[in-house]
Amino acid sequence: MSEKKHILDYDTVALDDEGRALVIIDQTQLPYHTEILHLTGQDQIWEAIYKLQVRGAPAIGVAAGYGVYLAAREIQEKTDDYQVFKEEFIKAKDYLNSARPTAVNLPWALNRMEKVVLDHPDCSVEEICKLLHDEAVAIQEEDIWTCKMIGEYGLTLVKPGDGLLTHCNAGQLATSRYGTATAPMYLGFERGYNFRIFADETRPLLQGARLTSYELHDSGLDVTLICDNMSASVMKKGWVNAVFVGCDRVAANGDTANKIGTSVVAAVAKLYNVPVYICAPTSTIDMDTPTGDEIVIEQRPAEEVTEMWYAKRMAPEGVKVYNPAFDVTDNELIAGIITEYGIARAPYTESLKEIMEKKAAAQASKAK
Amino acid sequence: MSEKKHILDYDTVALDDEGRALVIIDQTQLPYHTEILHLTGQDQIWEAIYKLQVRGAPAIGVAAGYGVYLAAREIQEKTDDYQVFKEEFIKAKDYLNSARPTAVNLPWALNRMEKVVLDHPDCSVEEICKLLHDEAVAIQEEDIWTCKMIGEYGLTLVKPGDGLLTHCNAGQLATSRYGTATAPMYLGFERGYNFRIFADETRPLLQGARLTSYELHDSGLDVTLICDNMSASVMKKGWVNAVFVGCDRVAANGDTANKIGTSVVAAVAKLYNVPVYICAPTSTIDMDTPTGDEIVIEQRPAEEVTEMWYAKRMAPEGVKVYNPAFDVTDNELIAGIITEYGIARAPYTESLKEIMEKKAAAQASKAK
Repeated sequence: MSEKKHILDYDTVALDDEGRALVIIDQTQLPYHTEILHLTGQDQIWEAIYKLQVRGAPAIGVAAGYGVYLAAREIQEKTDDYQVFKEEFIKAKDYLNSARPTAVNLPWALNRMEKVVLDHPDCSVEEICKLLHDEAVAIQEEDIWTCKMIGEYGLTLVKPGDGLLTHCNAGQLATSRYGTATAPMYLGFERGYNFRIFADETRPLLQGARLTSYELHDSGLDVTLICDNMSASVMKKGWVNAVFVGCDRVAANGDTANKIGTSVVAAVAKLYNVPVYICAPTSTIDMDTPTGDEIVIEQRPAEEVTEMWYAKRMAPEGVKVYNPAFDVTDNELIAGIITEYGIARAPYTESLKEIMEKKAAAQASKAK
Repeated sequence: MSEKKHILDYDTVALDDEGRALVIIDQTQLPYHTEILHLTGQDQIWEAIYKLQVRGAPAIGVAAGYGVYLAAREIQEKTDDYQVFKEEFIKAKDYLNSARPTAVNLPWALNRMEKVVLDHPDCSVEEICKLLHDEAVAIQEEDIWTCKMIGEYGLTLVKPGDGLLTHCNAGQLATSRYGTATAPMYLGFERGYNFRIFADETRPLLQGARLTSYELHDSGLDVTLICDNMSASVMKKGWVNAVFVGCDRVAANGDTANKIGTSVVAAVAKLYNVPVYICAPTSTIDMDTPTGDEIVIEQRPAEEVTEMWYAKRMAPEGVKVYNPAFDVTDNELIAGIITEYGIARAPYTESLKEIMEKKAAAQASKAK
């Protein structure tokens, strides 16, 4: 890796060539240091998810798939008994699942992997491990297809020269390729759309400054970094035609949990009549959660706010801090939810159901 | 200064006992280092205003008064000729005036000081310097009275136990005493109101984290620090009953320029039906500016956003940054403008005019 590679030349999450390690870019080190981590132990993988070294709902799903596959390989070395294997596998799965409480992709990917184990009690442990490998690869390939489709649908909502605003990082770095909120930007860029993109820096962990402005700038797009509290200034000037953001979980009624501050952007966008689009792989849509009120919001350490990134303390010792990692944006503030199976519009209780039915039909037809 | 003093034990801006130096707390060093600066040269004073070592519209006004008084003393040492003195004084005044383009208190205080010079062509330069001293002291004393009155009026809008949110620092540190947005908080605290206060950290310069949460916490108030993008989360939970913010300039129609992000708070507050009150000494009301559209917004260096406070670079080299220091909050988002002469309500074009007339009448009666 002596020659300069662009960020998009790396896979954000991958299995190494020997199939023995999860390879990720340590996103907590960006943009000033591109460190590639090779993770083998389950503790390392748990920590990478917890510490946001790998982050973004789709990327977490891919990492969880490969992560629990690597756990299965470890277990396989110790046993060829299905029952023992299954019990140990479920323990490993539950452990990884505890790393982040809000992102639905984590249990979604892990449950897919578990189903492989549960569905094949008559296979050898070795055969099951091969099936687990294929399932993890499938999760990644579907992620890439999903992002591309979201990009295509998203692109129908904007026009060349538009100003687009995004919050946090739902970019290539949050997925395997294209990103979700960035997918229309990248596809549009390839087709000469000349978007002007505004990236919220996204306190406290600054994913917008460190990751989104980095990957878009590195890829040659026209991106301007702003602080989260500048969204009203740029919208009032008419510089923003649409907001594209990712999501961590969409409830059945369209209420959407995403990085803290998304609902602030949505409130401001409402005032200035700018449409807000949620870029949501169907894996983030949770039809079992009726509304946003039932979504558990992760509270994170005060130090993320009071002590800056590698910096001095920025607030007095002992001051109280409220530091939720996410907020919920009410469905009434959302102009559309863009999925790989089309764009859902209000009323979301109906349109999301239709999307999920379309997905089920597509999967049933594929299975035939 | 060996014993522990609380931040409120210092004057934010003062003349030293010999009347030879402007004494300020270097606010760029707070909260981890309380450094008292003794400024004598005009370059030092200009820089202190430009670099936000002294900041907050009222404090800038007081600093400008004492600053140009010190300039007058320097000129007095070189000349006793009125014409020469006057010309040099105006140069010094224009120089200080160039340090910050948005805050109306800077020209306001300097013009008051200049009027002393222009009104006394028959006095000796020495006598004029004494009058300038008295005028600068009067500016400070009026500031203290003004803050106290804003606190009294503000307190009529809230009740014990209320949750209050503020943005940036319009605190004691931004004035001589009490602050403006914090005046109701401090007065209420003295009277046992038990407010729960939320302080926005206020990117990029973090005045809320470094200054507001510091001075309120140090004074024993119940303050919780949040990132700017968390305002919707706390308002949606019903934790905020009112927003109190300061201002840098109020236009004749009530449009208000204040620290960047104020209009974001106001947009969010509108969505959640939380009233937004602007705490505005009449010195910040500019009846010659018809609307917010005519207010010049200072653009500040990109590095404030891309390089954290004493920290590593947080965004890629070469990325574009938009970094306005202020934004304008439309009058329709403002529930009231609290001045030392009462509370203006919409329509502001009329109510602000009435406030200014009340002030003129009070001053005329005082002059008699």
